[in-house]
Amino acid sequence: MHQLGIEDIVRLALSEDIGTGDITTIATVPESATASGTFRAKAAGVVSGIDVTARVFALVDPEIAFEPLLANGEKFEPGDVLATVSGPARSVLTAERVSLNFLQRLSGVATVTSRYVEAVQGTRASIIDTRKTTPGMRLLEKAAIRHGGGHNHRVGLSDGILIKDNHLAAIGDDAIRRSIVSARAAAPHTLKVEVEVTSLEQLDEALDVGADIVLLDNMDPETMRQAVERVNGRALLEASGGITFESVRAVAETGVNLISVGALTHSAPSIDISLQFQINTGASS
Amino acid sequence: MHQLGIEDIVRLALSEDIGTGDITTIATVPESATASGTFRAKAAGVVSGIDVTARVFALVDPEIAFEPLLANGEKFEPGDVLATVSGPARSVLTAERVSLNFLQRLSGVATVTSRYVEAVQGTRASIIDTRKTTPGMRLLEKAAIRHGGGHNHRVGLSDGILIKDNHLAAIGDDAIRRSIVSARAAAPHTLKVEVEVTSLEQLDEALDVGADIVLLDNMDPETMRQAVERVNGRALLEASGGITFESVRAVAETGVNLISVGALTHSAPSIDISLQFQINTGASS
Amino acid sequence: MHQLGIEDIVRLALSEDIGTGDITTIATVPESATASGTFRAKAAGVVSGIDVTARVFALVDPEIAFEPLLANGEKFEPGDVLATVSGPARSVLTAERVSLNFLQRLSGVATVTSRYVEAVQGTRASIIDTRKTTPGMRLLEKAAIRHGGGHNHRVGLSDGILIKDNHLAAIGDDAIRRSIVSARAAAPHTLKVEVEVTSLEQLDEALDVGADIVLLDNMDPETMRQAVERVNGRALLEASGGITFESVRAVAETGVNLISVGALTHSAPSIDISLQFQINTGASS
Amino acid sequence: MHQLGIEDIVRLALSEDIGTGDITTIATVPESATASGTFRAKAAGVVSGIDVTARVFALVDPEIAFEPLLANGEKFEPGDVLATVSGPARSVLTAERVSLNFLQRLSGVATVTSRYVEAVQGTRASIIDTRKTTPGMRLLEKAAIRHGGGHNHRVGLSDGILIKDNHLAAIGDDAIRRSIVSARAAAPHTLKVEVEVTSLEQLDEALDVGADIVLLDNMDPETMRQAVERVNGRALLEASGGITFESVRAVAETGVNLISVGALTHSAPSIDISLQFQINTGASS
Amino acid sequence: MHQLGIEDIVRLALSEDIGTGDITTIATVPESATASGTFRAKAAGVVSGIDVTARVFALVDPEIAFEPLLANGEKFEPGDVLATVSGPARSVLTAERVSLNFLQRLSGVATVTSRYVEAVQGTRASIIDTRKTTPGMRLLEKAAIRHGGGHNHRVGLSDGILIKDNHLAAIGDDAIRRSIVSARAAAPHTLKVEVEVTSLEQLDEALDVGADIVLLDNMDPETMRQAVERVNGRALLEASGGITFESVRAVAETGVNLISVGALTHSAPSIDISLQFQINTGASS
Amino acid sequence: MHQLGIEDIVRLALSEDIGTGDITTIATVPESATASGTFRAKAAGVVSGIDVTARVFALVDPEIAFEPLLANGEKFEPGDVLATVSGPARSVLTAERVSLNFLQRLSGVATVTSRYVEAVQGTRASIIDTRKTTPGMRLLEKAAIRHGGGHNHRVGLSDGILIKDNHLAAIGDDAIRRSIVSARAAAPHTLKVEVEVTSLEQLDEALDVGADIVLLDNMDPETMRQAVERVNGRALLEASGGITFESVRAVAETGVNLISVGALTHSAPSIDISLQFQINTGASS
Repeated sequence: MHQLGIEDIVRLALSEDIGTGDITTIATVPESATASGTFRAKAAGVVSGIDVTARVFALVDPEIAFEPLLANGEKFEPGDVLATVSGPARSVLTAERVSLNFLQRLSGVATVTSRYVEAVQGTRASIIDTRKTTPGMRLLEKAAIRHGGGHNHRVGLSDGILIKDNHLAAIGDDAIRRSIVSARAAAPHTLKVEVEVTSLEQLDEALDVGADIVLLDNMDPETMRQAVERVNGRALLEASGGITFESVRAVAETGVNLISVGALTHSAPSIDISLQFQINTGASS
Repeated sequence: MHQLGIEDIVRLALSEDIGTGDITTIATVPESATASGTFRAKAAGVVSGIDVTARVFALVDPEIAFEPLLANGEKFEPGDVLATVSGPARSVLTAERVSLNFLQRLSGVATVTSRYVEAVQGTRASIIDTRKTTPGMRLLEKAAIRHGGGHNHRVGLSDGILIKDNHLAAIGDDAIRRSIVSARAAAPHTLKVEVEVTSLEQLDEALDVGADIVLLDNMDPETMRQAVERVNGRALLEASGGITFESVRAVAETGVNLISVGALTHSAPSIDISLQFQINTGASS
Repeated sequence: MHQLGIEDIVRLALSEDIGTGDITTIATVPESATASGTFRAKAAGVVSGIDVTARVFALVDPEIAFEPLLANGEKFEPGDVLATVSGPARSVLTAERVSLNFLQRLSGVATVTSRYVEAVQGTRASIIDTRKTTPGMRLLEKAAIRHGGGHNHRVGLSDGILIKDNHLAAIGDDAIRRSIVSARAAAPHTLKVEVEVTSLEQLDEALDVGADIVLLDNMDPETMRQAVERVNGRALLEASGGITFESVRAVAETGVNLISVGALTHSAPSIDISLQFQINTGASS
Repeated sequence: MHQLGIEDIVRLALSEDIGTGDITTIATVPESATASGTFRAKAAGVVSGIDVTARVFALVDPEIAFEPLLANGEKFEPGDVLATVSGPARSVLTAERVSLNFLQRLSGVATVTSRYVEAVQGTRASIIDTRKTTPGMRLLEKAAIRHGGGHNHRVGLSDGILIKDNHLAAIGDDAIRRSIVSARAAAPHTLKVEVEVTSLEQLDEALDVGADIVLLDNMDPETMRQAVERVNGRALLEASGGITFESVRAVAETGVNLISVGALTHSAPSIDISLQFQINTGASS
Repeated sequence: MHQLGIEDIVRLALSEDIGTGDITTIATVPESATASGTFRAKAAGVVSGIDVTARVFALVDPEIAFEPLLANGEKFEPGDVLATVSGPARSVLTAERVSLNFLQRLSGVATVTSRYVEAVQGTRASIIDTRKTTPGMRLLEKAAIRHGGGHNHRVGLSDGILIKDNHLAAIGDDAIRRSIVSARAAAPHTLKVEVEVTSLEQLDEALDVGADIVLLDNMDPETMRQAVERVNGRALLEASGGITFESVRAVAETGVNLISVGALTHSAPSIDISLQFQINTGASS
Repeated sequence: MHQLGIEDIVRLALSEDIGTGDITTIATVPESATASGTFRAKAAGVVSGIDVTARVFALVDPEIAFEPLLANGEKFEPGDVLATVSGPARSVLTAERVSLNFLQRLSGVATVTSRYVEAVQGTRASIIDTRKTTPGMRLLEKAAIRHGGGHNHRVGLSDGILIKDNHLAAIGDDAIRRSIVSARAAAPHTLKVEVEVTSLEQLDEALDVGADIVLLDNMDPETMRQAVERVNGRALLEASGGITFESVRAVAETGVNLISVGALTHSAPSIDISLQFQINTGASS
C-alpha cells in the first residue's frame, strides 16, 4: 500500500481510540519502562495489513521498533509469530489495540479469500471482490483480497464502467444497447465496458454491441454454462449474486472468468492474533 | 449521533467510493431523470445507522429526500421497509452503495447485540462492547450496540481506567494495589477504576484497595460465581474473554454485572438490506 | 463536477487569496452596499468552470446570487455575457479575483481543446488529454477538455494501465510481451491494457499478446499510417508526442483513433473575461 | 519556500495523480528495481520549483535521493541538467509526472518573468506580478516571479491595500479622497495605501491626501510620463493594464516605478524539461 | 470576521469539548425538550465575538436560533442582555460552554483595550496590539482589539516588515541601514518598513535611510519626547515595551503615534457573562 | 502530551503567525547565519509546555536543536534558564513568537495553579480545573493544571457525567433522583455520576440514590461544612462557584474533597519568559 493512501484511516483509528490520551497507561506504567512483544497467531490464515500495523506504531511513537517476520500474502499456522515490536512500554501499550484491530480484520479478509481461491483451483475462474467493503477501509481490504490470492474488481465508481440494473431502468427502451454505446463514447478509452444481464437474451444484446465484460446476475449454474458457450471468448463473464463458499466450486466449473463474492469483505470474521508483552520496568534491580 | 462526530468517516467512505466521479452513471443516466427507492430488509434484525444513511445522501446531494420509516433501535422483519429515498437519479445511484455499506453493517452489529441481550434476559447482566471495533467506525459501532440493547464500555483510552495484565506486568511487585492507587491519584475523579484479575486472590487484593470495577479474565462460571459471592456488591464485576453466544447465558447466571463480548463488533455479519429503485427518466411520454 | 471533488482546490484558492481578510474592501466599502455584476467575454471561446465559479461565490457568502447564462461547453463570442452575480458588495468584491482565475483558465483549456477538435473534424480521431495538468486542477481541467469537445485519457495512475518506455526499461528482455501479460494479470479486469511503442516491430509484439491500446510515440505520419493498416482494428491506436495545432490534422488523417495533446493543459492561455460591477452604496438619497 | 506553505498543494497534486495507486508500475516493475534519472532542459530558461520537486519525491518515498544541480533563480541552457534523482524504481516512476508538472510550470513562470525583466533593464522600473495566479499555486508562482528577477505585489487581499475602480464606485462622491482616508484609518499602520486612477486629475486627488502608491490604469505612455513628472517622487507609480512584452520597454521608459504584468502567471507556457531514467532491475546478471 | 477564517478554531474548540458526545445531556434531557436562554453580562464591558458565538451554535445544530441584541464593539453594563438563544434543549446545552468560552474571552480583550483607548483619549496615540496572542485565536483577538477601539499591528510575519533587535544582531556592522535597504528591496512595495531602535542615535540612522516606522524599544518618556521632536513627522513612531495601564497616558503624551501593548491579549481576563436557560420539557401537561 | 493530540493547535498557531512567510527575516538575515538562544524566566513560576515548545521548533525546521533544561512541573526562579535552542537563524527567528506564546501561557496556568495548591496544603482538598479553558488549548491547559500540582476534572462532555442545574431544570419534578438514575443507566459503567446541588436537602436526595460525587454550587463555608458531615465519606464533594485565591483556604478547611477554580484557565496571566539570541552571521572573520 502506498503510505499516502493509508494515512487517513490510520490516523482516524488512532484518534478515536486514544482520544485525549491513554490515561490508564500514563497513570500506571513508568515512563522509563520498555516493552517487547510478539504478534502470535491463534488460528491458521493469511497475513494482510502487516504494513498498516507498522504504520500504526510509527505514528504513535517513532521510537518503537516493529519487525515483521511474515510478509503480506504469506500463510501462517496457529502459534506462528507474525511480527515483533519493542520500545517504550507506554507507547507500545497505547498502540496495541488499534494495531490488532487492523491486523486481525485484514488478515481475516485475506484468509477468507484464500479459502474461496482454493475452492476454485483448477478452474479458470478468478475470485474477485465487490464494493461491499467496510467504510474507510476500501483500499486496505482491496489489498487484503490480493494477499489472499483474489483479484480486484474496480476500486470505486471512477475507475471502471459497470452498467447495473438500475442504470438500465433509467434508460428505458433498448437499454442494454444504448447504455453500452453511451458508456463507450463517454468514458476514457482505457476502460472496458461491463454490463449486468439477467437472461441469455440480454447477454446476446450485450455481445451484439461489443460489451467487454458481462455480469451474469443471480443465474443458476446451468444457465451460466450456456452463457459461457454462447460467448465463446468474445467477452469476459462475471458470475455474481448470492454465491457462497458451498456453491462457488459449481459456479467456477461453468467456465465463467470471474466470480465476485461480497462476503469476502462485508462479513469476514477477524482472525485471532494476540500481542503478548514482556515489560522491563526500567528499575535497577 | 452528533453530526460533527460522523462527518469524517462518512466523507472518507464517499471519497473512496466516488473517487473522481461515478462515470457509469454520468454516461448512462440522463441528468433529468429522478429516482425513488425503498430500503427493504431481507432478514430480521434491529436498525442502526439510519441517521448515517441520511447523512450520506445529504452529502452527495442536498436535493435528495431521505425518509426513515424506522428509528435506530427498532426491530424489523424480512420484507419491512426501513426508509425511502427520492431525488435526482444520478445522485441517488452514486450514493447507493455507501449508504448500504453503513446501514447493513451497523444494523448487523445492533442485531447481533440484541441476540446476546435476549439470551441473558432475566439475569442482572448487561451486555457490553469492547475496543475491538472496526477502524474508523468506533462511534458508530458504539451507538449500534446501544440500539441493540447493549451498554457501552469506555469509548477509548481517555474516558475510562482499565488496568490490564500488561499494565500490571509493567509495575512488578504488588502491582494490583499499586496500580489502583496510582490510577486513582492521577485520573480525573469522575472516573471509576477498573482492574483485570485472573484469580480470586487478585480479586481480594483489588477489593482491599477499593477497585470500583473488577474484570474477571477468562474465568470459568464456577469461579465467577465465587467471585460474585466474595464481592457481595462492593464492586461491579465484568466477565470477559472468549464468551460466545452459546456460553453467555451460563456466564450471566453467575451473577456478574457486565459481560463484554468482542464478537459484537469484530465479526458481526452485515444484515441483508436491499435498495430497490423506480426511475423516472424525465422524458415526456 | 461532483461538488465533493472540487471543494479542496476551491477552498485552497480562496484561502491563499483572502488570507486573513480583504482589508481594502472592509476599509472602504460600506457593509450595507450591494453590487451586481456581469461576466462578459472579451474574446471568443468555450465555457468551462461556470459551476466552479458558482461554488466560489457560495463559499465566500451564501447570500450572493450567481446566475449562469451559458452552460459549460457552450460557445461564446466577444461581448457575450456568461453569467451575472449580485449580492453584498463586500462579499462580491472579495470573491471576484478567484472566480475569474478559475473561469478564465478553465475556459481557456476548453477553448484550445475546441480548436484542436475542429481541426480534426471529419476524421475518426478523438482529441484526448494527458496528465500534464496544473497541480491541484486535474479534475477541473479534465472536465474542461470534455467541454471543449475532447475526450479524457485516464484521470490518474490508478484508473488506467499505460506501460511507458520507462516501465519497459525496468523489465529488460522481452519487455513488451512480459509487461502486457503482467499488467493484465494484476490489474482489475475492467481496465484495458495500453502500451507505448516506438517502432512497427514493437507494435507487432504488442498486438501478438493482445494489447488493447497502443501508443505510437513520436512517429511520423507515414509510419503511423502503416501502423493503422497493420493493426486493422485489432487495437486502438493513440498518437502522442510533439503534436501541434499545425500538425494535428495530418496525424488525424493517418487513421489513428486517439491523439493526445499535452499543450491542451500545460500551456493553455487564459481567456479574457471581465467582471464589471454596478454598486449600490445602500445610502438613502 | 517555507515547507509548511507548500504542503497542501503538493499533497493535493500527488493525491489527484496517484489516486489509489500506480497500478501500471506495480504490475510491471519489480519491487527490487532501482532507477536513476536526470532532469534535463530542452529549452533555455530560469529554474524555479526545484525545492518543490524535492518535496514531491520526499513525500512519495523518503528513500528517494533527489540532488539539485541548479538552484532556484539560476539560468539554464538546452541540454543542461537541473537535478538528478535515484532510488526505488517504483517510487521514482510514481512521482515522475507530478514532479515535472511543478518544475516545468514554475520554471515557465520564472523564465517569462526574466524576459520582461531584461526588457526593462537600465530603467528604474521593477516588473511585478498580479493576483491572476493559478488557483492553489499562489505562493509557488510568487516565488517563481522572484526567481525570474521580478518583484512581488501583495500576496493576497490581507497583506496590502489596493483601492480599485470597484471600491471607488462603492463610495460615490469624493471617492478617492474618502477611500484613502478610510483605508489609512482602518488598516494596520505597516501597510502603504495604493489607489487606482485613470486620469491625471484623479492622480492629483490621490496625491493630495497622501496616497503612498498610485496605480495608473491603462494609461498611454505619454500620460504616464506626465504622471511621473507631476508626482516627482511623492509616491510610487505602478503601470498596469494590457502591458505586453512588446510594449513593456516603452512603459518602463516613462519613469514609472512598477509595472505589473498578469501574463507572467495567467498564461506562462511550461518550459520543456525531461526526466530520463536508467533502471537497474535488481536481477543478478 | 470572514466565516472561512474562524471555522478551524471553532471546530477545534467544539471537538475538544464535545469529544464523542455530551453523555450527561443525552442521558438526562428528553430529546423533545426545548430551551431558551439569555446571555447576560455580570460586569461592564465591550462586546466581541458575538458572531463567533453564533457560529458555535450553528455548527452544533442548525435548528438553534441565536439572536444577537448587541453588535461587536458596543458597550454593555452589568445586567444587560447581549443575545438570546433558543432551540432543542440538548443542542443548546451541548454548545453552552464553548459559546461562553469564546464570548467571555473576546469581550475580555475588547474591554481591556477600550480602557487603554480611553486612557489616551485626546492624544494622537493609537493603542495597537502585538503578536502575543493566544495560539489559534490570532484573528479573533485582532478583531476584538478593533471592537475595543484599538488598531491592529500586522497580523503575522507575512503582512508587515518589522526589523527587530535579533534581526539587527544577525547583520552585524551597519545593521540598521543595511537591514532597511534589504527589506525595502525584497518586500512587496505595498509594505512599509519598520525598525526597532533603542537610542536616539539609532533613530537617526533609521531616518537617514528612510524608515517608514520606528519602534522605540523600552525608552523612558523623556527620550521618547526627544524622538518625537527629532522625527518631526518624517516617520511614524511606535512606543513598545513594558507599557502598563498606569504608564500609558504618560507615553501617549510624548507625542508618539502608536503604543503597542502585549497585555491586551496575553493576559486579558475573561468578562463574566452568564447563560441562563428556561427549559420546556416538551411533556404535555 | 501525546504528540497526535497537540498537532492541530500547534499547526494552527504557526499557520496564523507565519502566514505566507516571515518576510522580514528572509529579507534581512543571511541564509547561512546560525543562532543560539536561551529561554530565561523573568519571574518565578512552574514550567508547562516545554514539550509543546519543542514541537513548535521541530515543525518549523527539523534542523533546530531544542534542549529543555527544566521539565514540565519543575519550579523556576527569575533568571533561571528553562531551555536552549540553536540552529539556522532564520528558522529560529520565525518560530520565536509562537514558541513563547505557548510557553508563557501554559507556564502561567501551571504557576497560578501551584499557588492555589500551596494555599490548601495540609487540607485534604484537591484543586481541580473546569471547562472554562481557552478554545483550542483544552488538552494543553489540562496538562498545565497537573504540572502545577492540580488535578483534572473531566476533559470534556464525553468523559464524565456532571448533571448541572440546567439539566435538572429540563427534567422537572423529582429531577435529582430521576437524573441520577437515568445517567447511571445510560452512561458507560466506568464513569461516576456527579450532580450539582444548591442546598443540603438536594444533597440528601442525591445521596439517597447513590450519587458518586456531589458539586456544592456557591455554598458558604458553613453550609459546606455541614455537607461534609452529612456525607460522611459516602460521596466525593466538590466545591464550586466564585472561589478566589483569597477564599480558597477557608473552603478547603470545610473538608470538601475537590475545589474547582475557573480562574486557573480563564484568566491566568502569562509568565514573562524571554528568548535571547546570539547570532553567528556565518561570515568568515
